[in-house]
Amino acid sequence: MGSRLAFIGAGKMGGRMSRRLLAAGHRLVVHDTDRQLVEALVAEGALAAGSPAEAARDAELVILSLPTPAIVEAVIAGEDGVLQTAQPGTTVIDMSTADPGTAQRVEAACRAAGVNFLDAPVSRGVAGAEQGTLLIMVGGDAEVLEAARPVLSVLGSEIIHVGGPGSGQVAKLCNNMLAAINMQALGEVLVTGVKAGVDLRVLAGVLTAGTGGSWVLSNHLPATVFAGDEGTRFALELMHKDVWLFMRSAEEQGLSTPLAATAAQTLRMAKGEGYGPRDYSAIINYFERLAGMRLLPNKVAEEA
Amino acid sequence: MGSRLAFIGAGKMGGRMSRRLLAAGHRLVVHDTDRQLVEALVAEGALAAGSPAEAARDAELVILSLPTPAIVEAVIAGEDGVLQTAQPGTTVIDMSTADPGTAQRVEAACRAAGVNFLDAPVSRGVAGAEQGTLLIMVGGDAEVLEAARPVLSVLGSEIIHVGGPGSGQVAKLCNNMLAAINMQALGEVLVTGVKAGVDLRVLAGVLTAGTGGSWVLSNHLPATVFAGDEGTRFALELMHKDVWLFMRSAEEQGLSTPLAATAAQTLRMAKGEGYGPRDYSAIINYFERLAGMRLLPNKVAEEA
Amino acid sequence: MGSRLAFIGAGKMGGRMSRRLLAAGHRLVVHDTDRQLVEALVAEGALAAGSPAEAARDAELVILSLPTPAIVEAVIAGEDGVLQTAQPGTTVIDMSTADPGTAQRVEAACRAAGVNFLDAPVSRGVAGAEQGTLLIMVGGDAEVLEAARPVLSVLGSEIIHVGGPGSGQVAKLCNNMLAAINMQALGEVLVTGVKAGVDLRVLAGVLTAGTGGSWVLSNHLPATVFAGDEGTRFALELMHKDVWLFMRSAEEQGLSTPLAATAAQTLRMAKGEGYGPRDYSAIINYFERLAGMRLLPNKVAEEA
Amino acid sequence: MGSRLAFIGAGKMGGRMSRRLLAAGHRLVVHDTDRQLVEALVAEGALAAGSPAEAARDAELVILSLPTPAIVEAVIAGEDGVLQTAQPGTTVIDMSTADPGTAQRVEAACRAAGVNFLDAPVSRGVAGAEQGTLLIMVGGDAEVLEAARPVLSVLGSEIIHVGGPGSGQVAKLCNNMLAAINMQALGEVLVTGVKAGVDLRVLAGVLTAGTGGSWVLSNHLPATVFAGDEGTRFALELMHKDVWLFMRSAEEQGLSTPLAATAAQTLRMAKGEGYGPRDYSAIINYFERLAGMRLLPNKVAEEA
Repeated sequence: MGSRLAFIGAGKMGGRMSRRLLAAGHRLVVHDTDRQLVEALVAEGALAAGSPAEAARDAELVILSLPTPAIVEAVIAGEDGVLQTAQPGTTVIDMSTADPGTAQRVEAACRAAGVNFLDAPVSRGVAGAEQGTLLIMVGGDAEVLEAARPVLSVLGSEIIHVGGPGSGQVAKLCNNMLAAINMQALGEVLVTGVKAGVDLRVLAGVLTAGTGGSWVLSNHLPATVFAGDEGTRFALELMHKDVWLFMRSAEEQGLSTPLAATAAQTLRMAKGEGYGPRDYSAIINYFERLAGMRLLPNKVAEEA
Repeated sequence: MGSRLAFIGAGKMGGRMSRRLLAAGHRLVVHDTDRQLVEALVAEGALAAGSPAEAARDAELVILSLPTPAIVEAVIAGEDGVLQTAQPGTTVIDMSTADPGTAQRVEAACRAAGVNFLDAPVSRGVAGAEQGTLLIMVGGDAEVLEAARPVLSVLGSEIIHVGGPGSGQVAKLCNNMLAAINMQALGEVLVTGVKAGVDLRVLAGVLTAGTGGSWVLSNHLPATVFAGDEGTRFALELMHKDVWLFMRSAEEQGLSTPLAATAAQTLRMAKGEGYGPRDYSAIINYFERLAGMRLLPNKVAEEA
Repeated sequence: MGSRLAFIGAGKMGGRMSRRLLAAGHRLVVHDTDRQLVEALVAEGALAAGSPAEAARDAELVILSLPTPAIVEAVIAGEDGVLQTAQPGTTVIDMSTADPGTAQRVEAACRAAGVNFLDAPVSRGVAGAEQGTLLIMVGGDAEVLEAARPVLSVLGSEIIHVGGPGSGQVAKLCNNMLAAINMQALGEVLVTGVKAGVDLRVLAGVLTAGTGGSWVLSNHLPATVFAGDEGTRFALELMHKDVWLFMRSAEEQGLSTPLAATAAQTLRMAKGEGYGPRDYSAIINYFERLAGMRLLPNKVAEEA
Repeated sequence: MGSRLAFIGAGKMGGRMSRRLLAAGHRLVVHDTDRQLVEALVAEGALAAGSPAEAARDAELVILSLPTPAIVEAVIAGEDGVLQTAQPGTTVIDMSTADPGTAQRVEAACRAAGVNFLDAPVSRGVAGAEQGTLLIMVGGDAEVLEAARPVLSVLGSEIIHVGGPGSGQVAKLCNNMLAAINMQALGEVLVTGVKAGVDLRVLAGVLTAGTGGSWVLSNHLPATVFAGDEGTRFALELMHKDVWLFMRSAEEQGLSTPLAATAAQTLRMAKGEGYGPRDYSAIINYFERLAGMRLLPNKVAEEA
């Protein structure tokens, strides 16, 4: 006997989160502009809604997982948007990645309508969404978060209250900026070490054990580049987008970020060379190409 | 009843390693140009030698921990150097950080004299040296390493055979390049996040749990910048040196490393502003200064 | 028997331009929020107006020279702004530096009121304003420009029609981005050459004659850094502002600009170190400081 | 009745310089490892020599124009080298581009043999060599230069004594570093301006007249990129080599050069993408490609 929930956005992330909520016994109304994605969830017990407004009509909690800040803003405050029907006291949780400014504007619009708003972007990707082990970074009122925590706990294993409105997004952009830099650094360093004659797996082992270690090296690469698996977990063009949202934020605050700027430029160059749709670890393949070499001998790559 | 060992270099790292070897029951002859450092070890049971040649005379194993590649080369192959007295079959282990080219030249000189050589630079700093938990990256012959492993196990908890001569140094430079980039990235990102209104400790917690996590963030910063502790564990000017050795190596191989280049330039700028003698985490203080802000409110800094 | 002109903004640039227009026999109504600046011009024959609206009431041509895009927008379209009183057929010429987007928005607002608008930012600074030798880069309708050309010819010796609305600003930002890069490049290269033992004046002479020559080297430096003259012609913080407007424009178009990004970051670092109010050639002094040296021996600096 | 000269290196530059010296009436002995190049000059009146030593045997002046510092060193000081036969009092002039260190080593070797040495690298490329309008940057003794000036005047219209041994090379590297930066800056800025809707020729005109102007913009681009002419005047891979010699020099002096570092990295990336053999203005085509656009509409390119 769970809560009455609305979920808007049934893509890679939203679809998986919706399934977990259904499996946990919640009543779920789902909306997406792609009818096929909605019908797949209806087959598993969800109800379909024709618009965000319709989805939000009787919901206690409205959750969003959408591709861009502009869409988030339209889905909440636009025509046929959530605020057309949401009752005072409803809570809207945006689990998309957006810039802090958008989060603050949307929060103000909700507040004016008596609706609670939390920005709650996530980390750990598709696997985390599937297994309910997302890291959820929450900006907004602490009491509102406590009330929503039972539902969020179905989706994430780590739920951190970062601060006021927009601060969840700040933390998310900071995290992704670091991940992008760490990944590119590994591309440059692994190519240099392997070109100097060191075996990739041995080098990766040393670096994992050393002071140069990182989550990206220990967790992302063994399942992607090191395994010769080119499947996209988090697309380079999405990382590119987040990195430039970070840059915008740093710029507006007048801050010097030379390393972040270089990473942002390099991601854009890789995108210009066609790496956009690939996993963001493909920045490593970009440096392989520039060096005219392969980190993994072909045979190993084939075995994988 | 340990081996007859010679240890050349009794500084921050070498002194601590020597003490561990003495405590483990080895007979140790020590040399350093600074007599006081030698005498401190003599008080704990070591024998003093007036030159590298004298130290190496009857040693089965000669270990070096020295500040620069040029000194390593002189101590081994120079006048009054190790090779003047070392018997064929002796093993020389250089635990200093040097460039791969120097390691290969020195190895060739040793080989010509029938002496074994391993390049074996370390990670995890002074604390690792004190507790015998160093990460040791070894380049050279695998059998020579196996023979020396019992002694090295007194100094390090992780001993990795990276490959042929010089490859220990390659791995070390790769590791330090990554650590330097990760540290600067944290400086830029933490300043940006805190300036946007997020609490430093909360932000650090999120990033540690997220895909942007790194060894530097989890292990180095909590004991230094986050604690308001400005003690130098590994000086920025030493990191600067290693980073430029990495850059030289990448340059000679004709590789593109835009992120590493930016980090190398920024470290040099920080050095130009006087941060050289401070811990390399002071790059974070450099970005605080450029932003005209402090990550920790004063009160917290005072408490720490 | 000149035209009836309004001039809004009586600062360093606007004041000098107003004086030239008065000297050429035009009837000039002047407005500035700083009454003293206005009164100085009244003493030379101008009429004072209490607001932009009042200034524009009977003008055929309204010229603006203002510090920021936001002020330009308010002066034209805001309360008591130019559009409150300007008659259809009037022409507004904005000689401030702004982003192309602002120029296009303002142009649309003017057009809706039947008012012509030209964006017409300038190059060659205070000296050009004083001598009427400005380079004027004009965006907007070609016929409107032709009608205004007699007046603009009093101010500039080179008046170029760049293209449609906003394109004057595009050209201006491109120009200043180049000038900023050329200047920083000179800082890095001159310090490197002089540190290697070459005399500054000889080196500058060679570079001026060579393929590395630039306007900045031939015209700006001889009157500033090479002469030991630290007077501010164009402040580093203004160059910083223009460079970031350029970066914003490149970013929005999805373009890779690694060199421009590095220059933008370095200018920001120099600003963080306090160089903002100085002439933008002070980026050279910043590199002198980082290198711990002076390009000019003290004696020469004193003589200058 | 000219001097007895030896010329070693009959490539693009050396061949053209030799022709001018022959035309001016000098007796010229020529050597190159490529016999065909030598024979072409013999057909115009030169004598052939089988080795540098043979060429230098009776020469008063030995001029070199060679591709790398290593070859310069071998040709002068190696087996069958110039110093095997050169009489005391002979003057050797190296017009190749090399690093200052090589120039100083070679000068010392010459001095020990009683032979004068000038490093005299040139600017203004193939056209300058053909027309005798090279800029010649000379390091070494002023009196030696004065004695050689009549011959050098046949080759260059501007001959500058920069300072002591090696300083000609310092000036040359500084010049080329600037030219490389100016060129890349133009690539980034022109692409940004044209993408924003400004016509290339108009934009280039404005920038040429403005404070962002440079030799590269006024002289190199009109004959290459703007004309759709892809002929190689100075190959990108040669510029790449010079830029990294500059970087090495700055590194060894401990200097911060963030902009030069970025340009060096970008040139290397362009080289990695196959632009090495093209004219160095192809860095502009590289940015076109990254942006997915062309500066010149096809039709204009065809006309050109």
